[in-house]
Amino acid sequence: METHEQGFFTEENSADVVISRNAKAKNERLAEVMEVITRHLHAAVKEIEPTQEEWFEAIMFLTKTGQMCNDWRQEYILLSDVLGVSMLVDAINNRKPTGASESTVLGPFHVADAPELPMGANICLDQKGDPMLVRGRITGTDGKPIDHAKIDVWQANDEGFYDVQQKGIQPDFNLRGVFRTGPDGSYHFRGVKPKYYPIPDDGPVGQLLGKLGRHPYRPAHLHYILEAEGYETLVTHIFDPDDRYINSDAVFGVKQSLLARFDWVEDAERIKAAGMEGPYFEVVHDFVLVPKT
Amino acid sequence: METHEQGFFTEENSADVVISRNAKAKNERLAEVMEVITRHLHAAVKEIEPTQEEWFEAIMFLTKTGQMCNDWRQEYILLSDVLGVSMLVDAINNRKPTGASESTVLGPFHVADAPELPMGANICLDQKGDPMLVRGRITGTDGKPIDHAKIDVWQANDEGFYDVQQKGIQPDFNLRGVFRTGPDGSYHFRGVKPKYYPIPDDGPVGQLLGKLGRHPYRPAHLHYILEAEGYETLVTHIFDPDDRYINSDAVFGVKQSLLARFDWVEDAERIKAAGMEGPYFEVVHDFVLVPKT
Repeated sequence: METHEQGFFTEENSADVVISRNAKAKNERLAEVMEVITRHLHAAVKEIEPTQEEWFEAIMFLTKTGQMCNDWRQEYILLSDVLGVSMLVDAINNRKPTGASESTVLGPFHVADAPELPMGANICLDQKGDPMLVRGRITGTDGKPIDHAKIDVWQANDEGFYDVQQKGIQPDFNLRGVFRTGPDGSYHFRGVKPKYYPIPDDGPVGQLLGKLGRHPYRPAHLHYILEAEGYETLVTHIFDPDDRYINSDAVFGVKQSLLARFDWVEDAERIKAAGMEGPYFEVVHDFVLVPKT
Repeated sequence: METHEQGFFTEENSADVVISRNAKAKNERLAEVMEVITRHLHAAVKEIEPTQEEWFEAIMFLTKTGQMCNDWRQEYILLSDVLGVSMLVDAINNRKPTGASESTVLGPFHVADAPELPMGANICLDQKGDPMLVRGRITGTDGKPIDHAKIDVWQANDEGFYDVQQKGIQPDFNLRGVFRTGPDGSYHFRGVKPKYYPIPDDGPVGQLLGKLGRHPYRPAHLHYILEAEGYETLVTHIFDPDDRYINSDAVFGVKQSLLARFDWVEDAERIKAAGMEGPYFEVVHDFVLVPKT
């Protein structure tokens, strides 16, 4: 019976034995992925040395996380978010040359059919919150302005809620809009200063955050998708650097280059020149897109 | 704004940033476990470099695996089983001195209240399958027989099904029994030769096995829980070394020391001496328990 020995599972050879079983996989990429996952999974278990009770607790956590998911709640994406995996996958898929604007996660609140609005329009449809003017320029990495760039923007309101989270309370398409640049690549629109908000924390992921002494908040931000012919699409946010959670975004979405400045403008001349009705936050942020290769 | 820089997430420092957020965790063990998991998770993602589509496919696999679970189906344990994690956790928690019988996984088919039977009883209640006589001795690592050791045994039938999988088809408690050794530590009971069987493969885990070119079968085996005062409890199987799946158990439960021999006995003298009615499989297997320290 000695002939069996090399093939059997032991604590020492565990990952090798499991991986060797995938020799007949038809999908080479899947086999490659499972090899990496198996090696790291076994290495992690060997470092952790879980008791049977701890292992079962992990099984139940994974089970409950799946069972929390439904058509409008994706608890596994939340888990990926709070473990920094979503941002890591985003980073790997969006390496940018120096000088280009950086990406961050899309998030769950984008809607595909927001209305296209004339440049300068106010995306706040219910007059709630502190007025905000956002403006800047979209150029390529060569510094040239991009004509006809599409700016898809969305944001939470002054209480930290998106329209889709408050149907019947906020107007449909509140704080969403699509704009197109002209030949000078400039853009401007009006909104309200967004507020920090928690990711959904009434499920297994929220419980995990609590046990880890972590809060569920994301610092205030505006979402952008920027598209232009001949350029790579950019999915990103800009953040309020003075937000209390700017250094502890629950999903790790903040990057140095995505910090905007929210300047409170009270000067009557500037208010008039900007076409605003009273004091407002001014946010100036330029974007630099990468030409497609 | 330079002061923010060191704290923000980048592709390079990703795991460190995520781990640093757990500094206020009250449960030290959880923080330690999450540190190991985060490091390996990020390392695996960096090696794999998943596309956004692949990442979402993984999210959906984990979601569906959770949603497949119910009161009688635990798909995450199956996933742990087919990735060798269940056996690894078993190995870590059951390191044995040389000469002691080795453990393997409990599996989902143990029932707590099987009847205690007189030594030699037949646990096969429906006369289906090839008769089998199992016998051996239970000793400590010092070689001394163990008196009053409790032997809890259960097995699949000749078609690869446990009684609990075929309620109304098999009699209740078919192929299950509890025996107690006498002062010589010996045991014997009758059953039927078990057959290989598949783990449940109609869910996400079965689909994964299929894509990896793996089958879902476990080689034929008998389950044991051995308990004796003053000794560590042993949860294990013994396997048929001639089973077609002996080198490819879907859950990696086979160990060299757990291979029994299933000898087909046709000799009339031996049949008579064993108290059997006709030809039968004889399985002789001794167990060696470890004294509690």
